[in-house]
Amino acid sequence: MSSASASTAALSGDTGGISRPVLALTCGEPAGIGPEISIRAAWALRTEVRSILLGDAALLAQTAQVLDAGIRIAAISIQAFRNTGLPAFPVDCLTVIDCPVAEPVIPGQLDARNGKSVLQTLDLAVAGALDGHFAAIVTAPLQKSTINDAGVAFTGHTEYLAERTATPQVVMMLAGGDAPHLRVALATTHLALKDVPAAITFDSLSRTLDIIAGDLRRKFGIAQPRILVTGLNPHAGENGYLGREEIDVIEPALRAAQQRGIDARGPYPADTLFQPKYLQDADCVLAMYHDQGLPVLKFASFGHGINITLGLPLIRTSVDHGTALDLAAQGFGVADHGSMMVAIRAAAQMAVASAAAGAA
Amino acid sequence: MSSASASTAALSGDTGGISRPVLALTCGEPAGIGPEISIRAAWALRTEVRSILLGDAALLAQTAQVLDAGIRIAAISIQAFRNTGLPAFPVDCLTVIDCPVAEPVIPGQLDARNGKSVLQTLDLAVAGALDGHFAAIVTAPLQKSTINDAGVAFTGHTEYLAERTATPQVVMMLAGGDAPHLRVALATTHLALKDVPAAITFDSLSRTLDIIAGDLRRKFGIAQPRILVTGLNPHAGENGYLGREEIDVIEPALRAAQQRGIDARGPYPADTLFQPKYLQDADCVLAMYHDQGLPVLKFASFGHGINITLGLPLIRTSVDHGTALDLAAQGFGVADHGSMMVAIRAAAQMAVASAAAGAA
Repeated sequence: MSSASASTAALSGDTGGISRPVLALTCGEPAGIGPEISIRAAWALRTEVRSILLGDAALLAQTAQVLDAGIRIAAISIQAFRNTGLPAFPVDCLTVIDCPVAEPVIPGQLDARNGKSVLQTLDLAVAGALDGHFAAIVTAPLQKSTINDAGVAFTGHTEYLAERTATPQVVMMLAGGDAPHLRVALATTHLALKDVPAAITFDSLSRTLDIIAGDLRRKFGIAQPRILVTGLNPHAGENGYLGREEIDVIEPALRAAQQRGIDARGPYPADTLFQPKYLQDADCVLAMYHDQGLPVLKFASFGHGINITLGLPLIRTSVDHGTALDLAAQGFGVADHGSMMVAIRAAAQMAVASAAAGAA
Repeated sequence: MSSASASTAALSGDTGGISRPVLALTCGEPAGIGPEISIRAAWALRTEVRSILLGDAALLAQTAQVLDAGIRIAAISIQAFRNTGLPAFPVDCLTVIDCPVAEPVIPGQLDARNGKSVLQTLDLAVAGALDGHFAAIVTAPLQKSTINDAGVAFTGHTEYLAERTATPQVVMMLAGGDAPHLRVALATTHLALKDVPAAITFDSLSRTLDIIAGDLRRKFGIAQPRILVTGLNPHAGENGYLGREEIDVIEPALRAAQQRGIDARGPYPADTLFQPKYLQDADCVLAMYHDQGLPVLKFASFGHGINITLGLPLIRTSVDHGTALDLAAQGFGVADHGSMMVAIRAAAQMAVASAAAGAA
C-alpha cells in the first residue's frame, strides 16, 4: 500500500457513508489505568474517530466486558494487520491489534516481564503512522521503570518516539483550558533548575521556535501562528536588572526568528502573560522551563490537559497524567478518562488540519 | 493617646451606631492611577471601611469631583492629625490627610520633585499603624524611579516598609482567585533565575516558614495554618534525579518546621499542586521563586490579585499592578479599581481577625 493511498485511508477509515480519522491508541502500562481509559474514551468517541487500540487483546476484551457489556470489541493479530491492513469493522465495534503480554496482568501490580509488549505497541504505532495506516498516535501512560526493568533503556515516550523516527529535536507542548484554550510549549523540560539558564542558547531557542511555528502550520493548519515567548527571569529581566539572558540570548533569537518570517513576540514577564487579554490573539506560549509554564496550564485545564509532541514526522498526543496504579488497583470505573478524550479529539483535529494543510 | 485605646479606635473608627475598621490608603504616584483607584475604591466601600486617604488634598478633591460630583471629601493637615487625631466625619464623607505635592500634577507625567510627598504618605501610614490610629495600610502603586530621582535610594514599597519598621525579613504573599481562594508566598522574589537555587537555604526557608505560619495565625486568625511547599526542581526533583535541593535543603527545613509545630507539607511538584483537590485544604502555597508561583496566581485572579507583606509589625496589603501612567494620561474612568477594592477588603478582614487573635 502506498503512503498516499494509506494516508487517505487513515483519514477515512471506513467503507460506506461515514468518514472517521483512524488513530492508533497505545494502551500503555497494562497494570495501570491505560486499558480502561483507552476503551472508555474510544467507545465514547466511536462515531467521531476510528480508534485502533494497541494492547493485549484478552485484557482489553475483559476490561470492556466489565465496564459495559454493550461495548463490542474485535481483535486482529499483528501479522494479519501487516498482511491485509485494517478490517472494515462497523462503527459500533472497537478494533484491537493484539500485542500480547507475557504474564497475566494484576491491576496495580507492575510486572517487568510485560514491559516489552508495551514497547511493541509503540513500535507498531510509529510504523503504522509513518506508512499511513494511522493518521495520528494517542498514547496512554506507561511506566518507565517497567520497561527499564525489562532491560531496555527508556527515558520516556517522547524521547523514544524521537529516537524511533530519527528526530534530532522535539518540543513538548501542553494544551488545555477552556476560555481561551491554552497551548504552552517548553524551551527546556526535565532539567534541574540550576541547569536551565545555560541550556537556553541562541541555537536551541531558534530550533525550538522553528519547530513550533512549523508544526502549528503543518499539523494545526494555522497559516501564520503567533507565539508569545516568556523571559527567563522575573519581570523578563527588567532591562537587565534581574538577569541578562533576555538581552543576550532571548531577544536576539526572537529577532532572528522574526527575520525568518516567524511571528514570535517577547520576551514577556511570565507572571502577567497568562491573562485573556494577551492570550486571546496567541496560538502558543513558549515558556523557558517546566515550572514556569505548566502550573498555569494544568490549573487552567483541571486535569484534562494533554501533551503534544512537536517536531516528529507524525502526530502524537498524550494524556498529561500517569499510570495511576493506585486507582487501577481499586477496580474499574474509578479513573477519569477525560484527558484521554481530549487527547483523542485533539489528535483527530490535527489529522484533519494536517491533511488539509498538505493538500493546500 | 495610648496604643491600646488607639487600637480599639482603629477598629471602630466611628462615633455612633456603626463600626468600621480604619485603614490608611497611601495614594501612590500622584501622576499615576493611584489617586483615582484609591478614591473610587474607598468611596465604594465606605460603609464597610473607614479609608483615610494619604495624598495631596487638592489633587484628590479635584479627582473626586471629576469622577462623581456626589463624592464628599474633607481634608485635615498632618499637624491637625498629630494634634487631635482623626475627626468624626460622617460615613458619606471621605477623610484625607493632606500630604501636599511640590509641583502641579499632570496625569501620566512623572515629576521627581513630587517624589518626597509620596514617601511622606508612607511614613505617616507606618507611624499611624504602629501607634494604633490605623488598623492596616493599603498601598496604591508608586513609581520607584521618581523617588530615586528625588534623591532617595528606594527599591520598593516592601523593602521600605521593612526598613522603617526595622524588620529583618519579610515575605511576599499574593492572594486572589475565586474558588478556591489562593494564597501564594514566595521563598525568593526579585532575583535572577540563575541565583535562585543558592538563595534557598535551610535558614532562609526556616525563617520564611516561621513568618508565614506566624502571620497566618496572628493576622488571618487561622489557628493551625497548613502550608503546601513546592519543590525547586521540576517534579520536585524526582527523588534526586532532577536536582538535589529538595533532598538536601527543602525536606530538612520542612521536617524542622514540623518539629516547631508548623503544618508545612511537601515538597510537591509545582505543576500539579495548583489544583482544587490539593488547594482546598491549604491556607497558603509556598513557591520557591517568582515565576513558579505567580503566573498561576495572576491567571486565577484575573487582574484582581493583591499583594500582602508578611513579617511586618503591621498589616499591609497592596494592589498587584503598577502606576499605569498610560491609562492615567487617558483621563479618569479608564483604570480598573478592582484590585484596590480587594486590597482594602482583605486589609479590613485581616484587621478584624488580628484584633480577635490578639484578644483571644
